[in-house]
Amino acid sequence: MILEGKQIIGQDIAAGPGTSFQAVDPANGETLPPEFPSADGKQVERACQLAWDAFDAYRETSLEERAKFLETIAEEIEHLGGGLIERAMSESGLPVARLEGERGRTCNQLRLFANVVRAGEWLDVRVDPALPERTPMPRPDLRQRHIPLGPVAVFGASNFPLAFSVAGGDTASALASGCPVIVKAHSAHPGTSELVARAIQSAAKKCNMPEGVFSMLFDAGYEVGTSLVKHPNIKAVGFTGSRKGGLALQQAAQSRPEPIPVYAEMSSINPVFLMPKALEARGTDLAQAFVGSLSMGAGQFCTNPGLVIGLKSPALDSFIEEAGKALKDTPANTMLTPGIHSAYEQSVAKLAGNTKVNEVSRGLTGEGENQCQAGLFTTQGADVLADESLQEEVFGATSLVVICSDMDEMKRVAEALEGQLTATLQMDEGDTDTVASLLPTLERKAGRIMANGWPTGVEVCHAMVHGGPFPATTDSRTTSVGSAAIYRFLRPVCYQNLSDALLPEALKEANSLGLKRLVDGKREG
Amino acid sequence: MILEGKQIIGQDIAAGPGTSFQAVDPANGETLPPEFPSADGKQVERACQLAWDAFDAYRETSLEERAKFLETIAEEIEHLGGGLIERAMSESGLPVARLEGERGRTCNQLRLFANVVRAGEWLDVRVDPALPERTPMPRPDLRQRHIPLGPVAVFGASNFPLAFSVAGGDTASALASGCPVIVKAHSAHPGTSELVARAIQSAAKKCNMPEGVFSMLFDAGYEVGTSLVKHPNIKAVGFTGSRKGGLALQQAAQSRPEPIPVYAEMSSINPVFLMPKALEARGTDLAQAFVGSLSMGAGQFCTNPGLVIGLKSPALDSFIEEAGKALKDTPANTMLTPGIHSAYEQSVAKLAGNTKVNEVSRGLTGEGENQCQAGLFTTQGADVLADESLQEEVFGATSLVVICSDMDEMKRVAEALEGQLTATLQMDEGDTDTVASLLPTLERKAGRIMANGWPTGVEVCHAMVHGGPFPATTDSRTTSVGSAAIYRFLRPVCYQNLSDALLPEALKEANSLGLKRLVDGKREG
Repeated sequence: MILEGKQIIGQDIAAGPGTSFQAVDPANGETLPPEFPSADGKQVERACQLAWDAFDAYRETSLEERAKFLETIAEEIEHLGGGLIERAMSESGLPVARLEGERGRTCNQLRLFANVVRAGEWLDVRVDPALPERTPMPRPDLRQRHIPLGPVAVFGASNFPLAFSVAGGDTASALASGCPVIVKAHSAHPGTSELVARAIQSAAKKCNMPEGVFSMLFDAGYEVGTSLVKHPNIKAVGFTGSRKGGLALQQAAQSRPEPIPVYAEMSSINPVFLMPKALEARGTDLAQAFVGSLSMGAGQFCTNPGLVIGLKSPALDSFIEEAGKALKDTPANTMLTPGIHSAYEQSVAKLAGNTKVNEVSRGLTGEGENQCQAGLFTTQGADVLADESLQEEVFGATSLVVICSDMDEMKRVAEALEGQLTATLQMDEGDTDTVASLLPTLERKAGRIMANGWPTGVEVCHAMVHGGPFPATTDSRTTSVGSAAIYRFLRPVCYQNLSDALLPEALKEANSLGLKRLVDGKREG
Repeated sequence: MILEGKQIIGQDIAAGPGTSFQAVDPANGETLPPEFPSADGKQVERACQLAWDAFDAYRETSLEERAKFLETIAEEIEHLGGGLIERAMSESGLPVARLEGERGRTCNQLRLFANVVRAGEWLDVRVDPALPERTPMPRPDLRQRHIPLGPVAVFGASNFPLAFSVAGGDTASALASGCPVIVKAHSAHPGTSELVARAIQSAAKKCNMPEGVFSMLFDAGYEVGTSLVKHPNIKAVGFTGSRKGGLALQQAAQSRPEPIPVYAEMSSINPVFLMPKALEARGTDLAQAFVGSLSMGAGQFCTNPGLVIGLKSPALDSFIEEAGKALKDTPANTMLTPGIHSAYEQSVAKLAGNTKVNEVSRGLTGEGENQCQAGLFTTQGADVLADESLQEEVFGATSLVVICSDMDEMKRVAEALEGQLTATLQMDEGDTDTVASLLPTLERKAGRIMANGWPTGVEVCHAMVHGGPFPATTDSRTTSVGSAAIYRFLRPVCYQNLSDALLPEALKEANSLGLKRLVDGKREG
């Protein structure tokens, strides 16, 4: 498939009149054809108008029609074959196995949401039947369902060019909820974006979806994204990226005449707590596994273990020594973009320059451009408590081990943490009581708490929470991974005394969708 | 019970060192004893510290303990007897029957939430069991529950001194979710507030709840409220009141280092659509019922029908004439406060002064202070489309009838409306097709859509939505009335591979709470 470098606006493919940009292969710094001219205000307007025009029709497509559309998107992405993977490799520097895995995850995610749509739990149907005989006042018939918010603007992430980009989690969950989607393509992987957008466009056509159900716009700068977030037709925003970027979008959304929700998944350093018994029993294994998790994909994961917290002890000394050794031999990996690489170098230099921080070791330097040299540092618990900058995210394969003088200090460090996507416990049975006393703090701090795993690797399922208190996200009540992500784009509507003829299918007396409704507060079996 | 005019801080009763204020009987303008000295910064700090200290313990009380606490609050309020009603009458000008009804609603609401807590649906328990044999990667055991956000600041409403104040819907749903509550008492009914706060304080003691589960502070101005919203221990805000007040709190909450959600229920004019067949068949009855709904409680309801929309026709002319006649004989009622009365007079004068608006009639003027003289006005559909100020809420018994030239204009007027709590359809069977074409717009505009009722009167049940798009509320994804209000104060947490010993009760394998969990995406029967 030949890349055209054009906007996807409904069923149109339209050249952008704005400034052009090109992708760069981070492995060698070479510019990749073609040029991608930015969209202009008219094209933003056109995409938003089409999305608005599509909204009422799209949100009332049957559950089966909508599910089929999501499945067809997955098929169309699979039909792109090796060309998609090749382009994504050139644009991201990520290896083939990783990208093939990510494609699988992207398509599985679309199919998961197809099944979520069919199951209809997300409609949250509630029925309080009329009580005409009640005194002093009869009760009317009251029924509730959830409806989608409206067109959603999605901003893809650079670190998941497939699973968190054009057809990623935000798009899949928004489309599943009944919201049209307009993607602002990430400028790091425009070719990958175009291929996937054309797959969605093709699926929309095959499934006879209203034209404006999906559009995608390119931009060399920030204008298109800001215009989208400020457009009155846009009713919610999905974003994965930096804290700065997320907060800028949140600010723009809040300053609209009608503020709208922004779901920004931003920054997290994912503390790992090394509990004493586990550390004593298997410190060496933990050190190896830790370095594996830290350096995977050049550490470019939202859930990268950027902070490791242990108690001052010979076992912790050994752990640090072993991890340092393992890290020293860790090969450098190409980072996603020159910008990410230079930000990483600056962040590591800042950390290393902190007088309270000691370097344990650095990884191999690697050859070629934009190589991520891993790093391991230590500091003391008291220093973390005194210096907030030690909690700043270093996006890449660098981690800071925090040495706490005792359990009490470990708890105070936990309590001083900002909001996190994850908190990890390395523990043995003998640590159970200590962990139990730490858990309430971790629950208040993180969206996901795990034992004896590593935070990288986020399962796409029903119980997943990829979210957490600020600044991990802008809305701790939600998740951006897993089936519950659909709830971000829904709101409840109550229907009082409407005739069966006027009620939406999900609320009609016949319950033809076979939903397990909440009737008078009780869940139907 | 003698009023002391003191802050309720945990189990303490503490004199405030700040500026004093007193309640005013709006019926005669007289000042009511005692004085209520405002809290100071130290007392805010003390209440927030107590709430924080109580949080981890309170959120892990058993479902039964928490339900009993809510029920005990209801009992303690009932034990206050006639003294509560008398004081509320003096402070609000509302009649005894209304306040007795409101007390019933307040206690029923607490008992409803007790049952909601017991049923445990709000925990939204999800289990994705481990798949150790899955290739290429095994799946870990993943479980999700919802936990409360943290201490909540509640701002009561003047128009519901019981049901939307100290022990009202926000407090009941926040306590039900496991959040401690700090109320900023409404300065219009401080005595009523003190009585109810002491009932809650007593219930907390009887039920052995952690001390900081509830506090209430007085303030003559805005300082205490702002300090509460900005305090790092506060994690969410519930508010019912004016758009200006709600937006100020939203602004304060968003400018915190850690922004928090604000659930502000603000302004709504609750459009009523008079469909042609219904208007022809029973215009006179509709006119009578409309004026009844409009003038009830001096129109001081969030769901007051402030806008009536019909098609230019002899039937609409008759409706206007009949409504005008009925309104002319409508007695004036005392408004809640002198401030509300003077704002009402100004808003009516502004409306009447609009050159596109015609007066149909005014109600009786009444004797005594702060009397609400009802008002009925008309304008044309084209004028509403051209002038946004015609959509401004007039808080009180005044409504504007919009005469549309045809169905197309009615739809455009509907489309031009701001977000609303309710939209009402007066319709007969012959109007069904017309209504069907209007419904998608109303769904996008309102939280509740009703046929052949009146928006005043909000049922407290499971399917209720008392919410809606901005500016009806700051968060259209929620409701402030009904059992679903609990979801405002919760967030999901995922537990990965935690041992059964460490899992919270709701997630343990045994499912001792008997919850209908979502297992692998399927609801247990």
